[in-house]
Amino acid sequence: MQKIQDRIAALREQMTQNGLSAYIIPSSDPHMGEYVPDFWQARKYFSGFTGSAGTLAVLRGRCGLWTDGRYFIQAERQLTGSGIELFRMGVGGVQTYPEFLLGILQKGDTVGFDGRMLPASDVESMEEKFAAKGIQVRSADLITPLWKNRPLPPATEVYLHGEKYAGLSCAQKLEQVRAGLKQEGADGQIYSKLECVAWLCNLRASDIEYNPMAVSYAAVFQDSAVLFIDSSRFQPGVAAYLEQNGVTVRPYDEIEPYLKKIGGQKTVRVDPDCINYELFHILKENPSCRIQKGSDLVIRLKAVKNRTEIENFRIAHVRDGCAMAEFCADLEKRLEQGETVTECTVCDLLREARARQTHNKGESFATIAAYEENAAMMHYSPKPETCKTLQKRGLLLIDSGGQYPEGTTDITRTFALGPVTEEEKRHYTWVLKAHIALASAVFLEGTTGGGVDMVCRGQIQKHGIDYRCGTGHGVGMFGGVHEGPQSIRPKNDVVLKSGMNITNEPGIYEEGKHGIRTENLMLVTDAMQNEYGRFLRFEILTCFPIDTAPILPELLTKDEILWLDEYHSRVCQLLSPLLTGETLEWLKRKTRPLNRQVS
Amino acid sequence: MQKIQDRIAALREQMTQNGLSAYIIPSSDPHMGEYVPDFWQARKYFSGFTGSAGTLAVLRGRCGLWTDGRYFIQAERQLTGSGIELFRMGVGGVQTYPEFLLGILQKGDTVGFDGRMLPASDVESMEEKFAAKGIQVRSADLITPLWKNRPLPPATEVYLHGEKYAGLSCAQKLEQVRAGLKQEGADGQIYSKLECVAWLCNLRASDIEYNPMAVSYAAVFQDSAVLFIDSSRFQPGVAAYLEQNGVTVRPYDEIEPYLKKIGGQKTVRVDPDCINYELFHILKENPSCRIQKGSDLVIRLKAVKNRTEIENFRIAHVRDGCAMAEFCADLEKRLEQGETVTECTVCDLLREARARQTHNKGESFATIAAYEENAAMMHYSPKPETCKTLQKRGLLLIDSGGQYPEGTTDITRTFALGPVTEEEKRHYTWVLKAHIALASAVFLEGTTGGGVDMVCRGQIQKHGIDYRCGTGHGVGMFGGVHEGPQSIRPKNDVVLKSGMNITNEPGIYEEGKHGIRTENLMLVTDAMQNEYGRFLRFEILTCFPIDTAPILPELLTKDEILWLDEYHSRVCQLLSPLLTGETLEWLKRKTRPLNRQVS
Repeated sequence: MQKIQDRIAALREQMTQNGLSAYIIPSSDPHMGEYVPDFWQARKYFSGFTGSAGTLAVLRGRCGLWTDGRYFIQAERQLTGSGIELFRMGVGGVQTYPEFLLGILQKGDTVGFDGRMLPASDVESMEEKFAAKGIQVRSADLITPLWKNRPLPPATEVYLHGEKYAGLSCAQKLEQVRAGLKQEGADGQIYSKLECVAWLCNLRASDIEYNPMAVSYAAVFQDSAVLFIDSSRFQPGVAAYLEQNGVTVRPYDEIEPYLKKIGGQKTVRVDPDCINYELFHILKENPSCRIQKGSDLVIRLKAVKNRTEIENFRIAHVRDGCAMAEFCADLEKRLEQGETVTECTVCDLLREARARQTHNKGESFATIAAYEENAAMMHYSPKPETCKTLQKRGLLLIDSGGQYPEGTTDITRTFALGPVTEEEKRHYTWVLKAHIALASAVFLEGTTGGGVDMVCRGQIQKHGIDYRCGTGHGVGMFGGVHEGPQSIRPKNDVVLKSGMNITNEPGIYEEGKHGIRTENLMLVTDAMQNEYGRFLRFEILTCFPIDTAPILPELLTKDEILWLDEYHSRVCQLLSPLLTGETLEWLKRKTRPLNRQVS
Repeated sequence: MQKIQDRIAALREQMTQNGLSAYIIPSSDPHMGEYVPDFWQARKYFSGFTGSAGTLAVLRGRCGLWTDGRYFIQAERQLTGSGIELFRMGVGGVQTYPEFLLGILQKGDTVGFDGRMLPASDVESMEEKFAAKGIQVRSADLITPLWKNRPLPPATEVYLHGEKYAGLSCAQKLEQVRAGLKQEGADGQIYSKLECVAWLCNLRASDIEYNPMAVSYAAVFQDSAVLFIDSSRFQPGVAAYLEQNGVTVRPYDEIEPYLKKIGGQKTVRVDPDCINYELFHILKENPSCRIQKGSDLVIRLKAVKNRTEIENFRIAHVRDGCAMAEFCADLEKRLEQGETVTECTVCDLLREARARQTHNKGESFATIAAYEENAAMMHYSPKPETCKTLQKRGLLLIDSGGQYPEGTTDITRTFALGPVTEEEKRHYTWVLKAHIALASAVFLEGTTGGGVDMVCRGQIQKHGIDYRCGTGHGVGMFGGVHEGPQSIRPKNDVVLKSGMNITNEPGIYEEGKHGIRTENLMLVTDAMQNEYGRFLRFEILTCFPIDTAPILPELLTKDEILWLDEYHSRVCQLLSPLLTGETLEWLKRKTRPLNRQVS
């Protein structure tokens, strides 16, 4: 641990030279992404803690790391001997890092951080809290000069996401954005979320794990559109496409000078949750810019899928269903034959099954394969050293997804590998009832995600259980597996619109016992229009059987059984033509009507 | 209509003398109540329109009346020849009165109104809109000097609402309010809603139709509590009670001079939706007052019923159930015997049945007795000239409530008077399913009214129907039948707390055909506490059978039938000891298990 202590000592020296009493190193990047490239993993470098979420705060005398329940054990182990104290987020009485800093720092002190690594909204709220005690905040990059052997920034090949997938040209999308800006009374907006730039320009790359995006920024004004990216990475045709669509390309690092030079009294819209503080600060200091705080228009636009995107999403889900079917039939056979299969084997087999599908571009996130009590840990991810070996009993939860140019997928199934307990059956059936309640909902236009949450969650809460996470999230178009703004969770006020997609993933997680989740991706679509208004419903995109073995049919209503049988009939119809041999037999067996199985 | 024209002419003369270009006369009173005493019915006097809701706006050249769909026909008839134009609120393209005034008035014009008759929030938003065009607003009472033979202000006897009903003394309630004020950083709050003053001081009267309240204001500060009321109306004992509880009594009209004289730099909390503009304005002009805008603390406190109030509510609902049973058994007999019974007869019979109950203090609102297609009009109230005569067929909807010192009731039932159509049966059963879904919900602490709305409404919307109103509202303790802040409707963000009551009243209203609603009052109560948190559920307060005749049992699940049978068993158990003879027989017949009826 001497290495970590030396790094922190060097950081403290830099802090002193820069007049900083504290320095914050968060786990993020300039684009506020869910997955942070190695190039920006400074928190790992300075703390030795390798978990995906955590914030390091270094003071002259003390040093703390804040992380959540997923990483308590790992962080404790990795921080031992480093001199860094562990702060367990969410545990009663444990201070947040701003609270901790507030308690130690004095009037006149300054807190530093790299302003590119924090969203403007976080810094603004911190600024306000600290200002009340006479403490200042300042953006300063102390990382770059200290980080030895720093990984290179991601620089994978950038290619076009064809209009046959995207449905709209980049120029058409720019037109939509400009119309939106006009309506909001803004002259332009800066886009820094990678999924937004990717969608806007119809470009993809492999810079980010599981996310087919390129590190870049975009600025759209009524008379110009600029993409900030390293153009040496472009595949042939990309540069010409951008030019034809009215997009100017400038080097990635020129975003800052560009923002400094905006002239002519422009109203620039920024989403303080999406833009990093450094860029926000530059705009604020530019006397020619009037900042309009508001939601990111691209996030809003891309959430509503167009007709071409919807057709492609359907295709992606049929392919993904085939991958799942091939994997499952294979897994079942291996288990029958007594082969040793671990949670990690499951991940490997599933990745390979997806990779065999036409156009597959890998996975959309790290597969969760969690057997028995491991599945009760919601963010469990098996490690080779510790993963469980499957037996011919109990429940196996698999949450996974694929990337296809046709769309991104996200599916969870829980399978009975053999006998399961009565409680497991009951919980499995309750989760299924909750899933069906949401899947078969019809609701008036204007209904929000928060408005429908209890339709699903209420089916679990009525038994005195809760799943402590959202019921559903949006999914990107060959993009991120979590893309908003739509979300089904308490108090979410985003209106569900026809063309949005959203997952349906209720669950029951009993610590030390089992974890159950059944997740489909759904599309919000029109149901009917009459004197009461326009009604919406969900079309199920995910195309894969739901295990009927753990169901207690006597707990299901006739309508619920009907829903399940109809879903399975459709799954069978769509997947059959693409499957053969044992997999086809497996599919037929798994989509047999429950009705007939019961009676 | 010469009379109305003369009154408006006189008003215009006053407007000119006061330098006003327009004058607004709303349908409200200084206490922002739902029911306006005759003394404040100026809009009726100046327009001739007698509906309960409507706003008159008089300009030098034109004059308009704004009312909603309930009153279009009546208003058209009553305004004929008056020169007043009718503006149909809610009809596409029809301007609101501020929009209308904005379209006609010019820069420099001033709009007048009696500031005591509008909530501060309304005037503030109007002020802002008008200011943008250089139009001013000014409070001026032009009504008092012009109104000939004005009714007297209400002045009924004021009596104590005993602590055996209220559960807390006035002093204890003041303590709660003061603790709340301290927490909010306020020195005092002004209460002008009559139900708030009544609850706070444990006083009741009969000033307002259906509402057992006295016209009054209260001001609570850390070191004083003042009740503004005409004390000559006090029953013996009231003055002493108030004195013992630390309340000073001052004449009603002294509220304004009192607010002007508040000294010593006080932070005064006001709820802009509850306080009238005149009082708000006085506080704003008082240099010793710093206004803190925030919710009315008494509204928040009284919404959560204490143990004594809850016990009393249960008693009130048993009594009210007996009244309903006696009325229903009697009505059924009359119809069997071929007696002519109209919707108005129903109202009379029900009023009399309630009046026979111990402690009954009248009704909590005007009974809605709506037969067949009349029930599709949600705010229908039968008139002797136009009401329908009941036949031995179709559905009769009765929405009514009683006032008892033990609590206020609100119940709706829909009865089959004989054969009903298949559609009526289907709709009746869907409404029942929605009702049961909410009644049997269990949900985590922290859930809002908006969060559970779809649990109920979703059962109706899934059939492409909506009921276009809230699912439920709070009810006062021997107070108003609509008392917030709790409410079950889309987007309502008030957290449901143990001890709050709330109605459960889904419905289906098919224009020209039928209207169905099944309404119970429920109490939010504890369900269980475990590792997932604290769960809440509903206890049903209303104690009266739900007609099983129009049910299609095949549409109900086993759990729904079980809920209904259990509810009926409890209703029978609670009401039986209080009923005799034919009514008891009727009750037994009506609470027979559906289970046994079906099989």
